[in-house]
Amino acid sequence: MLIEEARKGYANDLVKKAAEFENISLEKFLRLISHGYVVMPKNVLRDTAPKAIGMMCSTKVNVNVGTSIDHVNLDEEVEKVRVAEKFGADAVMDLSTGGDLDAIRRRLIKETRLPFGTVPIYQAARGCRIVDMSEDDFFEVVEKQCRDGVDFMTIHAGVNWESVEKLKRAKRLVGIVSRGGAITLAWMLHNEKENPYYKEFDYLLEILKQYDVTISLGDAYRPGSIFDADRVKLMEYVVLGELVERCRERGVQCIVEGPGHVSIDLIEPSVKAMKIATNNAPLYLLGPLVTDVALGYDHIAAAIGAAIAAKAGADFICYVTPSEHLGLPTVEDVKEGVIAAKIAAHAADLIKNEKAKEWDYEMSIARKKLDWEKQFKLSLDPEKAREIWSRRRSNYACSMCGDLCAIKIAEKFFEISL
Amino acid sequence: MLIEEARKGYANDLVKKAAEFENISLEKFLRLISHGYVVMPKNVLRDTAPKAIGMMCSTKVNVNVGTSIDHVNLDEEVEKVRVAEKFGADAVMDLSTGGDLDAIRRRLIKETRLPFGTVPIYQAARGCRIVDMSEDDFFEVVEKQCRDGVDFMTIHAGVNWESVEKLKRAKRLVGIVSRGGAITLAWMLHNEKENPYYKEFDYLLEILKQYDVTISLGDAYRPGSIFDADRVKLMEYVVLGELVERCRERGVQCIVEGPGHVSIDLIEPSVKAMKIATNNAPLYLLGPLVTDVALGYDHIAAAIGAAIAAKAGADFICYVTPSEHLGLPTVEDVKEGVIAAKIAAHAADLIKNEKAKEWDYEMSIARKKLDWEKQFKLSLDPEKAREIWSRRRSNYACSMCGDLCAIKIAEKFFEISL
Repeated sequence: MLIEEARKGYANDLVKKAAEFENISLEKFLRLISHGYVVMPKNVLRDTAPKAIGMMCSTKVNVNVGTSIDHVNLDEEVEKVRVAEKFGADAVMDLSTGGDLDAIRRRLIKETRLPFGTVPIYQAARGCRIVDMSEDDFFEVVEKQCRDGVDFMTIHAGVNWESVEKLKRAKRLVGIVSRGGAITLAWMLHNEKENPYYKEFDYLLEILKQYDVTISLGDAYRPGSIFDADRVKLMEYVVLGELVERCRERGVQCIVEGPGHVSIDLIEPSVKAMKIATNNAPLYLLGPLVTDVALGYDHIAAAIGAAIAAKAGADFICYVTPSEHLGLPTVEDVKEGVIAAKIAAHAADLIKNEKAKEWDYEMSIARKKLDWEKQFKLSLDPEKAREIWSRRRSNYACSMCGDLCAIKIAEKFFEISL
Repeated sequence: MLIEEARKGYANDLVKKAAEFENISLEKFLRLISHGYVVMPKNVLRDTAPKAIGMMCSTKVNVNVGTSIDHVNLDEEVEKVRVAEKFGADAVMDLSTGGDLDAIRRRLIKETRLPFGTVPIYQAARGCRIVDMSEDDFFEVVEKQCRDGVDFMTIHAGVNWESVEKLKRAKRLVGIVSRGGAITLAWMLHNEKENPYYKEFDYLLEILKQYDVTISLGDAYRPGSIFDADRVKLMEYVVLGELVERCRERGVQCIVEGPGHVSIDLIEPSVKAMKIATNNAPLYLLGPLVTDVALGYDHIAAAIGAAIAAKAGADFICYVTPSEHLGLPTVEDVKEGVIAAKIAAHAADLIKNEKAKEWDYEMSIARKKLDWEKQFKLSLDPEKAREIWSRRRSNYACSMCGDLCAIKIAEKFFEISL
């Protein structure tokens, strides 16, 4: 188990590679893993690529794929995984809720070496009328997915009776928008029972530990409107912080998930509060979306939020696509989403570590030299960059400024800079 | 002249409308205009829509249109103006450098009531080999464009001999990327003369004042790489601050322009420094782009920077399109660019004034009710939102979650929130 090996000072090859990639000394890197400040999601059964998430590491990007009951097309989901990887995703989650979920998961996990995540309760709820799940169903699905090699799993273990009372008093505008959170709450309220994942958290950890699966503690109460970025959310982090401690005691790697819809002034304080409540657990954010009105363009609202969050300390960013709030994303949406998230992650990495700057340095030099091939090669999407440049062939540098190109004028009439 | 009328306590209809729109008392609004903290660009010859830019006002968005020597298509530029206005632009600048510049400008200005801006030196430089311009050419083109009804003009009056020396010592990576700045510097260095706009600034103000044209003080030294966000830029703001003071003394409305390429941690301090140096002049930012590598997706890198800048105090945002650094934008690029900038501006406005929240409130309620028609109507781009939602017809709420929709689950099994 990675965390226990790290505590003993042992580093396997993957750990060494990750430390080198992150430009952190091995000794320091092992210490970060020992404390749970950095995780490397990897199921013992799987040959997962080394991806370190957390303190001092570069910001990682996750891409969600998966079917829904309305739209099941396995080839398309496979293509999404490929596109995600091509454009720089660091992890993939299968959120399928339609079709043969076992077959889909087993097929998608073979498509990539990136850390692979799931939300097991979707599968548990799919087989029945949600509230009819048995307590065993909650755990059996986790174990089955562990056996399939899943590297990390979102589990909404922070929902408990106490929090339900708090939610009632909060008078939210949109209420619950977390799918896993809504399923868990529906089950609890209908059956008048405590959330099994919360009640039997140690048992859950036992299962995960056998496979060294990383738990990603879901935020059931994440706001679905900027008006819902409220105290319920903070309360959940207090509970999640307690669970983080139990994960660390048990030697199970854990991540904490975060919102959602948050106005721009509250992102930094929220991220810092989450870091305090969870004693620096690696933080995995969806968005945050900085406005509710960007329907069709939520990847942009999310990129703004993600950049600010990553600057403030978020470690892992879940992409958002232009289809958010509207429908299952297409392959093209996946591409748009991952590129927007990569821009946000990189913008934050530029101030987190010197190494990230090399990319911008190379691009700036190529720009100064008007070296177009080099610029395309260095861009996030060389095909698109070349297409835009080519569509209006220019006799000069590019068709934007033509002969009135600042760089060409400087070259011709003066040259102060280089 | 607006600023002088405001100083006398007189408010015309446009001023009253703008004050009402911005939700500022008329008395306070007149005071803001008197101090130069708020401007309303409007040429005395033109029936321009009331748009207030500056302190306490909502964040405004500018869209650049215009030909280049490689691509002259007046119909396309007209269409860009229409699209810009349709998707919420607050101002339009004609940056044409190809074709019959007078005819293009006169045609475009008729297309819209939005404040209309230009960069006169482009036209002055177009007629000759840049360095051959006479000193008179600098001013004649300004006067001609004033007569055409242009409401605001970018003029790089802050470039002077002293700053050239500072630039030499700065050893920049990319150097000068401001087109107007490069033209001005080329002329100065070739002719070994001071910048006429700087030397004869009072004369320039005299011309502008006759037509009550707002001067937008261009930032010739704006960084073209995150590595160039340096002291030269700060130095320019000190000079621009002096010019702002002279504008205010003369009763000429003025705006100050800003960068450019700036890493995410330096945006807030840069904006605050600009506000200090210019005594709270309305601040007009291009970007800032938070990374150099987002070729083809610079509208997203700019949206991140613009949101952070507007939160810190930027008042006026110049859109950036996916074509930035690559070519003259298409009509579709204009649309993408203006929507990205509007998202950034609105994200900041949500924390600047209560009124901006009404939009998100309505959207959140519609989302909670799964009222799709209302959501489309409230979105930035109803056609696109509807198209995404429709392309995968769902029997449930939408094809993203299908029957596992959190809102539907809450509705069916519990209802705590509303």
